[in-house]
Amino acid sequence: MTPLDCQRHEFPPTRLHGGDVLERPVLAFATHGSLSPARDNAILFPTWFGSTHHNNTWLIGPGRALDPSRYFIVCVNLLGNGLSSSPSNTPSPHDGPRFPAIHVLDNVRLQRRLLRERFGIGTLRLVVGRSMGAQAAFQWAASYPSEVRGMLALCGSARTTPHNQVFLASLAAALKADQGWRGGDYAEPPMAGLRALGHAYAAWAMSPEFYRRGLHLEQAASVDDYVARRWAGNFIGRDANDLLSMMSTWQRADLSDDPAFLGDWKAALRAIACPAIVMPSRTDMYFPPEDSAAAVEHMPDAELRVIESAWGHRAGSPGSDPADVAVVDGALRELLRRSG
Amino acid sequence: MTPLDCQRHEFPPTRLHGGDVLERPVLAFATHGSLSPARDNAILFPTWFGSTHHNNTWLIGPGRALDPSRYFIVCVNLLGNGLSSSPSNTPSPHDGPRFPAIHVLDNVRLQRRLLRERFGIGTLRLVVGRSMGAQAAFQWAASYPSEVRGMLALCGSARTTPHNQVFLASLAAALKADQGWRGGDYAEPPMAGLRALGHAYAAWAMSPEFYRRGLHLEQAASVDDYVARRWAGNFIGRDANDLLSMMSTWQRADLSDDPAFLGDWKAALRAIACPAIVMPSRTDMYFPPEDSAAAVEHMPDAELRVIESAWGHRAGSPGSDPADVAVVDGALRELLRRSG
Repeated sequence: MTPLDCQRHEFPPTRLHGGDVLERPVLAFATHGSLSPARDNAILFPTWFGSTHHNNTWLIGPGRALDPSRYFIVCVNLLGNGLSSSPSNTPSPHDGPRFPAIHVLDNVRLQRRLLRERFGIGTLRLVVGRSMGAQAAFQWAASYPSEVRGMLALCGSARTTPHNQVFLASLAAALKADQGWRGGDYAEPPMAGLRALGHAYAAWAMSPEFYRRGLHLEQAASVDDYVARRWAGNFIGRDANDLLSMMSTWQRADLSDDPAFLGDWKAALRAIACPAIVMPSRTDMYFPPEDSAAAVEHMPDAELRVIESAWGHRAGSPGSDPADVAVVDGALRELLRRSG
Repeated sequence: MTPLDCQRHEFPPTRLHGGDVLERPVLAFATHGSLSPARDNAILFPTWFGSTHHNNTWLIGPGRALDPSRYFIVCVNLLGNGLSSSPSNTPSPHDGPRFPAIHVLDNVRLQRRLLRERFGIGTLRLVVGRSMGAQAAFQWAASYPSEVRGMLALCGSARTTPHNQVFLASLAAALKADQGWRGGDYAEPPMAGLRALGHAYAAWAMSPEFYRRGLHLEQAASVDDYVARRWAGNFIGRDANDLLSMMSTWQRADLSDDPAFLGDWKAALRAIACPAIVMPSRTDMYFPPEDSAAAVEHMPDAELRVIESAWGHRAGSPGSDPADVAVVDGALRELLRRSG
């Protein structure tokens, strides 16, 4: 297979953390590189909100920290992203708006089963994630500390803060303001709502400083042109129920929402035994560095490394400032060295 | 009249800065206190986006800087706010979505005529405004420097930055995502769109720090309850075209968009001769202090005084932290002392 091809792993009926049963959960994933005979070179790299495994390739390649000639890198699609089990691809009676509530822990548990059942992988050299993917990385490191040897969380959080929840609720409200949404039973995509979501992202994902420096003008002729071309159409073609499912997973993300921690936030953070680097962006408007700092305080072997970037939530992400991407690559390299 | 009553001042047909003619512009306003025989105690206090003169009273009263026993305080409603000329109260052919584009300068010019024609006021002791009202205050001080003896700009800007424009475009997109909007020719209010606007404001107007400190829980039982009760319904009952008209005025706000400056931004700021205090909030997400600092740099007699508050864009505004309101009151007092 080429790295961009995608495999599927199907599970038997599975009870979710929220209590519902998902009949035939599927995780879609792509791998880069080869698993070593000792099965000790695996890296897990989940996707984020609105992305697929295709978007993970920016950190992977020869000469990069995530080098497929050395590591076996599993890029797994989050539940709800349209490739893994999602409202849009699940048969009745769990289709569309009837798709059950997914927790971060559900993603992590299925990912763990995938690694074990499909590849016999019991230990990860590293788990790395961005944004919602970082929430999964945190959960991995806290819930399965003996199976994770390094963790990097980029522009994410260990739990969704109240402000982030309000931000997410506003995105959902914009999408649902479109009567075409019809409570999730739409015949045609709610285009105006999807477009409004893209507009909101243009303001939230990029920082005031990004626009102040005129960085948008490197990609467009004007601010209107930038929003129209780079953002407004960004969610057109996505399935609205899929987006809402992922948003609701994000909304309820809380590292301590695991039977092992019973809501004890500090205990969950203390459980993260592996070396970890937590990398918020200085200008991220919905995952601000203050919240990462508060989490790192309770993690035994973690470093807060703020990316000093004007790129807001997109610092270090695909298509952003190469200098920031290099900073992320360097941090990955350090963690892999330590866990080697 | 009681201070909350509202008077109207009608003008003959007036050519707007954008070129259109407004047939019978009206400014609605309320006054507090009495004009001195020398007409030298007038303070102008315009409204802001989505507010009316009723909302201005939090800074006015005996013992406050804006003391009606000493000053004649004119609270004037912005064009588009539903009381002054607006899409919702203008007859055909300029009704609803056909209401002409309004610039900040149009508000300022009509306010100036109101003060002269109605009261014979040629000089202001002070012009003070919040948010969009601050944009009007800036414009007053730059366009009529010999007529303004003090200026206070609270949580606003001298021109709308690209990021702020993207933020505004996202609000408009959320409102218009509601098919009930019908291009502005709605029979019933586009309730879902108005509600989405309120949701967006809940995330934008209050800072991450506000929610991090749990200040929302002083007003509600939970974050959902806070958003539902304090914000989601906030724009229900407003006229969508009025809101869009004000947003478009805000969107194009630029101090230098005056024939006197011809787009020369620094020249416009240098023209502000009076003592001025520019008061952004440390945590304002769409009028961040960096932009105020950049403006103050070019103003001959201005001080940047950042409000160190967690209240985001609402720092110092009605119903916010009384300590911040006291800081604003103190700054008003200083300016009035200097212009006395």
